[in-house]
Amino acid sequence: MESFEEIRQKDKVQVLPDFEKISIFNPLRIGVLFSGGPAAGGANVVAGLFDALQQMNPKSVLIGFLGGPSGILEEKFRILSKEEVDRVRNLGGFNLLGTGRTKIESPLQFEQAKEVIAKMKLDGLVIIGGDDSNTNAYFIHEYLKKNNVTCSVIGVPKTIDGDLKSKEVEISFGFDTACKVFSTLVGNICVDAMSSLKYWHFIKLMGRTASHVTLECALQTGVNIALIAEEQLSLKDIVSQITDTVEERARQGKNYGVILIPEGLIEFIPEVAKEIPEELLQDKDSHGNIKVSQIETEKLLSKMVIDELTKRGSSVKLNPIHHFFGYEGRCSYPSIFDATYCYNLGINAAELIKAKKSGVMATIENTAKDVTHWKASSVDLKLALVEELRNGKKKQVIAKALVNLSGPVFKAFLKARESNRLKDNYLRPGPIQFSGPGASAITHTLFLEQQYPC
Amino acid sequence: MESFEEIRQKDKVQVLPDFEKISIFNPLRIGVLFSGGPAAGGANVVAGLFDALQQMNPKSVLIGFLGGPSGILEEKFRILSKEEVDRVRNLGGFNLLGTGRTKIESPLQFEQAKEVIAKMKLDGLVIIGGDDSNTNAYFIHEYLKKNNVTCSVIGVPKTIDGDLKSKEVEISFGFDTACKVFSTLVGNICVDAMSSLKYWHFIKLMGRTASHVTLECALQTGVNIALIAEEQLSLKDIVSQITDTVEERARQGKNYGVILIPEGLIEFIPEVAKEIPEELLQDKDSHGNIKVSQIETEKLLSKMVIDELTKRGSSVKLNPIHHFFGYEGRCSYPSIFDATYCYNLGINAAELIKAKKSGVMATIENTAKDVTHWKASSVDLKLALVEELRNGKKKQVIAKALVNLSGPVFKAFLKARESNRLKDNYLRPGPIQFSGPGASAITHTLFLEQQYPC
Repeated sequence: MESFEEIRQKDKVQVLPDFEKISIFNPLRIGVLFSGGPAAGGANVVAGLFDALQQMNPKSVLIGFLGGPSGILEEKFRILSKEEVDRVRNLGGFNLLGTGRTKIESPLQFEQAKEVIAKMKLDGLVIIGGDDSNTNAYFIHEYLKKNNVTCSVIGVPKTIDGDLKSKEVEISFGFDTACKVFSTLVGNICVDAMSSLKYWHFIKLMGRTASHVTLECALQTGVNIALIAEEQLSLKDIVSQITDTVEERARQGKNYGVILIPEGLIEFIPEVAKEIPEELLQDKDSHGNIKVSQIETEKLLSKMVIDELTKRGSSVKLNPIHHFFGYEGRCSYPSIFDATYCYNLGINAAELIKAKKSGVMATIENTAKDVTHWKASSVDLKLALVEELRNGKKKQVIAKALVNLSGPVFKAFLKARESNRLKDNYLRPGPIQFSGPGASAITHTLFLEQQYPC
Repeated sequence: MESFEEIRQKDKVQVLPDFEKISIFNPLRIGVLFSGGPAAGGANVVAGLFDALQQMNPKSVLIGFLGGPSGILEEKFRILSKEEVDRVRNLGGFNLLGTGRTKIESPLQFEQAKEVIAKMKLDGLVIIGGDDSNTNAYFIHEYLKKNNVTCSVIGVPKTIDGDLKSKEVEISFGFDTACKVFSTLVGNICVDAMSSLKYWHFIKLMGRTASHVTLECALQTGVNIALIAEEQLSLKDIVSQITDTVEERARQGKNYGVILIPEGLIEFIPEVAKEIPEELLQDKDSHGNIKVSQIETEKLLSKMVIDELTKRGSSVKLNPIHHFFGYEGRCSYPSIFDATYCYNLGINAAELIKAKKSGVMATIENTAKDVTHWKASSVDLKLALVEELRNGKKKQVIAKALVNLSGPVFKAFLKARESNRLKDNYLRPGPIQFSGPGASAITHTLFLEQQYPC
């Protein structure tokens, strides 16, 4: 019997109308790399790129840099074969090449990268990454241009966090799948809470800084409480509100519930940071970010709620169960949406290189509609840059999109918030499906943002 | 658009040949309850029971006891309507009635239960539960018989742990779904490990005492290391073997890997218990079991491996990430297998009551084959009882089936163990599917045990 993995690889992915015919062209030599945390669908960007290049000219060469941007600096790469690409097609993750967080940012590194790119005679370099990686893509493009090396640098918007978006970038790939994986699990836990009748589940969800993932999962599952970091409540208010809900539900005979906590909460609440040992806060990654996934906010909060119940002299006994979902959602089989989106982003990257565009991000418009309405596009990375303080230094970066508290997604959440708090309005989206009705569903976030643009 | 939840509810479930025609009968009054931890498919047992009773006679009444066995003692129950049953059909969990761990075991409780059952004029009582709950079912049956109360007591084999099985009971419901949910996540994490190239994932899997769940998930995913508690290795040997693998893989440039740890490991290793604070070990549940899910064996092991690396003077730096999967697998939408199995177990329970059987567990034979080969059956609970020490007292109980180290499942695991340790033989089963190829797949455990009976 074929394994499900084998079956998935053969799945056809729909191509958007622009790409139904790809014209013949000179052979191109293109490099591609993954940067930062993995996201489902990454392999399909490479597959789209590979297939488009082959259709343009079978003599084209696609070179994969290994282990992230350091693959350029260390000249670690591999020419990709059809067999290799076919093995990961429609499957999740960045395992084809591996990824890494090394940044190309020092003058020496820029020079090194330029030398390698020139030596390898690359017509294009495709950088699949998040905000930091796309910022990087822009500066590599600038450096190459200044030094008269003709190589198109194209960014591809990736991040499960969903914070790489703007008017031009409707959604980053990986967000759809990650939210669906997490919502499957959260939905299962909601039913467990209603079945077991005795646990409060404190679930932390991955998503550095912004709370898009938590907001989307709250809409998909109808949990009792979802903390949205951007609301910037004080720790005292958060604990007090959770405790109120725990007590009110207990009065209704419901000694159970489900709470979603965004990983980035800690960045918005200075008091939380005070509760964390100093050494943890100093342990920042190379982008100057706190390693928030290491901080057990979920345990901190449940402990504080128990303390608050005691302080109030409440008879309610909280039985907390803690979860953190993150890694399991980054390399899932991509949802139909992500598989399709990524494959077309890959083709688009090839077309942009063919058109000699550089310093741009490959994008697609109308993604909330059926694929037949999708439109290939691109956005100038320079226009996306803003000045920010990083590690105390001014830097040009692509700004992270935070949850818009007057946007349609947060409004939809607010509408149900009070009812969800006390009632069991739980929804169970169930596991991601690849066929049958519902398989092509998009996130509430994408739907609402496109339906009601601010 | 219909939600996926709505779509799932309408799914037809295949009925085994014995049940294609259910003959008309007197109206029956039947009570049903969930006992112990939830498991996917529970609602379908009730649905099968309900539909069979309605087909026998539309005047039949199905009464659900609320919150587990205590529902009988406290006379908390509800007459179930078709609408209510339809709302949970093919969906996971025990949320229709709730569950609990109260046991009916004192002379007073038996008398109370008898009084309620007699007063309610129940023709049958269906107890959906694991080994302890089925033991209980037997003693309720005995008490009713001794006191001339005519009510058939029928057990239904439930547990995600997979340890309620024997020659007669091929599989307990919930095991198939839970293993698939966990394997989906473990498979995703394997791909993340290969993508990120820097983490060792220590994943603890729910499953009290026996390691069936870990063994099945190891076969479904090809992880590098899976600890099987029944091997009874010393803690020193376990840590030493993990450290060897970490070092050997590092020499191959692989600073990543995935380790599965059964929740029950601690029960087999007296030294682990010593590392755990005394108060935790005394915190046993009402069945006299250690609350193993509270003990973070995964963190204990990674810490010991880091210490061992230091002791060896190794240059390898272990980056551990910890996970515990349990609650998210108990109330998933049931797999096609569990949905079908549970529905037919429910019909079978109704038929057994009609046939005036009592003190038996509803079972189905040939479950490793296509449903057209399934055969309804039952097993006398008395025959399943053995004498065990519980809390220092001799008790008649249904023995937990441990992993058979000379059985076909463990042998299949051994065959791949050495290769999986160093190579990346990871498999990704992907999310549970409800249509298309692979949707009806059964576990390796069930397949191998039925194919090669000991």
